Amino acid sequence: MTKANAVVGQSGGPTGVINASLVGVIEVAKKHSEIANLYGAVHAVSGIVKDQFINLKKLSAKTLELVAGSPSSALGTSRDKPDEEYCAKILDVFKKRDVRYFFYIGGNDSANTCFIINNMAQKTGYELHAFHVPKTVDNDLLVTDHCPGYGTAAKFVACACLGDDLDNRALPGVKIDVIMGRHAGFLTAAAALGKTRDDDGPHLVYIPERGVSMEKFLADVEAVYKKYNRCVIAVSEGMSDVDGVVWTKKIADTGEKDAHGNIQLSGTGALADFLAGQVRNSLKIKRVRADTFGYLQRSFPGIQSEVDAKEARMCGRQAVKYAMKEQSGSVAIKRLPGNKYKVELFRTDLANVAEKTKSMPNEFINAEGNGVTDAFVKYAMPLTGGLPKTEYLAGYPRV
Amino acid sequence: MTKANAVVGQSGGPTGVINASLVGVIEVAKKHSEIANLYGAVHAVSGIVKDQFINLKKLSAKTLELVAGSPSSALGTSRDKPDEEYCAKILDVFKKRDVRYFFYIGGNDSANTCFIINNMAQKTGYELHAFHVPKTVDNDLLVTDHCPGYGTAAKFVACACLGDDLDNRALPGVKIDVIMGRHAGFLTAAAALGKTRDDDGPHLVYIPERGVSMEKFLADVEAVYKKYNRCVIAVSEGMSDVDGVVWTKKIADTGEKDAHGNIQLSGTGALADFLAGQVRNSLKIKRVRADTFGYLQRSFPGIQSEVDAKEARMCGRQAVKYAMKEQSGSVAIKRLPGNKYKVELFRTDLANVAEKTKSMPNEFINAEGNGVTDAFVKYAMPLTGGLPKTEYLAGYPRV
Repeated sequence: MTKANAVVGQSGGPTGVINASLVGVIEVAKKHSEIANLYGAVHAVSGIVKDQFINLKKLSAKTLELVAGSPSSALGTSRDKPDEEYCAKILDVFKKRDVRYFFYIGGNDSANTCFIINNMAQKTGYELHAFHVPKTVDNDLLVTDHCPGYGTAAKFVACACLGDDLDNRALPGVKIDVIMGRHAGFLTAAAALGKTRDDDGPHLVYIPERGVSMEKFLADVEAVYKKYNRCVIAVSEGMSDVDGVVWTKKIADTGEKDAHGNIQLSGTGALADFLAGQVRNSLKIKRVRADTFGYLQRSFPGIQSEVDAKEARMCGRQAVKYAMKEQSGSVAIKRLPGNKYKVELFRTDLANVAEKTKSMPNEFINAEGNGVTDAFVKYAMPLTGGLPKTEYLAGYPRV
Repeated sequence: MTKANAVVGQSGGPTGVINASLVGVIEVAKKHSEIANLYGAVHAVSGIVKDQFINLKKLSAKTLELVAGSPSSALGTSRDKPDEEYCAKILDVFKKRDVRYFFYIGGNDSANTCFIINNMAQKTGYELHAFHVPKTVDNDLLVTDHCPGYGTAAKFVACACLGDDLDNRALPGVKIDVIMGRHAGFLTAAAALGKTRDDDGPHLVYIPERGVSMEKFLADVEAVYKKYNRCVIAVSEGMSDVDGVVWTKKIADTGEKDAHGNIQLSGTGALADFLAGQVRNSLKIKRVRADTFGYLQRSFPGIQSEVDAKEARMCGRQAVKYAMKEQSGSVAIKRLPGNKYKVELFRTDLANVAEKTKSMPNEFINAEGNGVTDAFVKYAMPLTGGLPKTEYLAGYPRV
C-alpha cells in the first residue's frame, strides 16, 4: 500500500460511543506504517475545508481510553451536508496534505459525504480509500443489523423509563416521556426494554412508524388509567397523526405556541406539554407530568452499553483494516444465528448506506400500533448490555 | 424495651436512595426482638389511615439488596401533609395494631408529621418512639450536614451537565438546563461539580437564593458566548427575578402560556423554552437548545452515589438503634474535620427539623450570583462518590 496520510472525522449528532469508534480507528492506524500521519478533522468536514487538524498518532494509550469512554464527539462535529463543490474543497485539502485514507464516522449523510468524495477522487484519478463507520442513536442505517450508538442510547432510555415507572408507582398519575427519533421509532421503542412485571410501564409506546389520532391516544390513556390507576407513556418526538403529519407540526399549525410565542418543533418541551395538557383537560386527570429526555439521551456519561462500546470500537478498527486492502465501503454489523448474541463485521458499498434510512419493521410493532413486540425486545435487549434489576414492594400481600 | 410492633413509611418525593434507608430500618429491626412485626406503610400516611401494611421482616436478604439499589419509594409514597385530625387517625391505627415504634423517612414535612404524632402520643400517655429519617434531593433540611438523596441526585445532575457540556463543545451554541429545586439551590449548584477544564460549562449557574433580572441574565449569556462561542447554563426551576418573584410565575403573569394555553409552573418545559426564546430573540443566537431534566434527577436507576447509598442506609439503621433507647428524634449527619471525608450520625429533636428549610449559604455562591465557589465544590463533591473522567480532543494543538 501507498504510504500516505489519513484523515478521520466525526459527523452529525454525537453519541455515547462515537469516540470509541474514533479510538478504534486511531489504535489500528497507529500499527500501520502505511499511515504516516493520522489527522483528526476538527469539527468534521467544516474543519477539513479550513485545514484544521490535530495529530492523533501521538495520543497516549491512557488518553485514548479516556476518549473511548467519553460521550460527545471528541474531535468536534458538524451538521454540514457537503455538496459537490464542498467536496471538491475537501479533496483539495486531501491532495495538499497527501491524504489517501479517509475515515468518516457518522450516519447516512456522512456515508453520502464519503460516497461523493470517493466518486470525485476516482473520476480525477486520485487514489483515495474512503470508509464510512456507522453511528447513530436512531438506529436507522440500512444494511447493518444495528448501529453503534443505538445500544447506549437505548440503555439510557430504557433505564430512564424503568426508573420513571417506579416513580410513577410511588406517586401514581399519568406520565408522558418524549424520546428522540424523528422518523425511526427504535429509540422510543427501547423505553419498553426495562419492563419485567405485568403491570410495568411504559404502558403505551408511540413511534413515528404508526400515526395516532388524538382521540385514539386519549382513549388508550384512559383505558390504561382505568385499569392501573396510573399510566406511563413513551412518545417519539416524531409521533404523527393518522394523516402522517407530525404532532409538533399540528401544534404549530393550530397556532398553539410556546411560552414566548415561538413555534418550536424540537429540542423543547412543547410536545410533552401539549400532550400533558390534552390528557389533563380531556380526561380530567389531576396528576399529569411530562418530561422530554432531550440531549441526555446521547450525552449522559458513565453509562455506555459495554456491548455497544465494544462494537463501536471494533467498527473503527475494522474500517482501517478494510482500507488497507479495499478502495471504499461502509462497515456493517451482522448478527449471527444462535441463542447467544454474537456478531461479525462486513463491508458494504457506500451507495448501500448513503442517504437511505431504515424504519422499525412491522414485526417489532404491536397490532394496535401503541407498543412493541417480544421480537423487538429480543432484537434490542442484547445491545444495551443489560439493565439494572429493581424491586418494588407496595404490591406485596397486605397484613 | 416494650415488645411491640413498628411502622415504617416513605414520604414525599422519591429519591435514588430512600429505599436504602428503608432497608437500613428493616435490617436492624429484624435483629431486635423488641420489634415483633415491622409493618411497611403502603403509600405513607395515606396507607396508615387506611390500615394498609405489608410485612417487612419476612423479606429475604436478596430482596432487600434489590430494594436498596432501586430508585423510587418501594412502599409507595404520599404528598399528604397530615394535620392534627389526620394524625389522630394515624394514632388510632397504631393503637389498634399495638405499634410503639414509628419510622418516617422524608423531608421537613415528614419530620413535622413525626413531631405532631409524637406530641399527640405523649399527651395521651401512649408510649411511642417516633423517629424521622432524613431524605431529600433538595438538601434543604436543617441540622444535618447534608441529606441522604442529595448526593445521588447531585451525581446525576453533575454527570448530565458534564456530558451536555461535551456535547455543546462538539456542536457549539447556547444550552440551557433547568434543574429541580424550588427554594434551595444545592441541586442546581451541583451542575458545576463536573467542571475540570478552565472553559468547561456550565458557565452560568442561577439558583433561587439569588434573583436575576432578564437583562442581567441575557448580558451574562452574551458575555460568555462572546468569549467561548458557546454557553452552557444551569438554571434552577425556582430561579427568580430581582424582586423575588420566580420566573415561572412571571411567565404566567405576562399571559405567556404553554402550547395548550395552560399556565404550568413546573413539571414542564415552560421555563426552559421561555429562556431559550429570550436568548434566541434578544441575542440573535441561532443555535439555542433547552432541556428540563425533570424526574430523571430523582429516579434514574443504576447510578447511586456509593457514599449517599451507604449513608442513607446508615441513617435508617441508626433510627432503629436510637428508638431502642430514646423516645423520639431525627437522625442527622455530622461531617468530621480533616482532609478525608468522614461522617458520624447523631440524634436531634424533631422540632429542630420539622417544617424548617435550609438555603445555600453565602460562601457557596459567587459574588455575581451566577456561579458557585470552591467551598461549595469541596462540600458537595464527596457526596457524589466521584464523577466519570472524560477527555475532549478538539482543543489540542493543530498540525
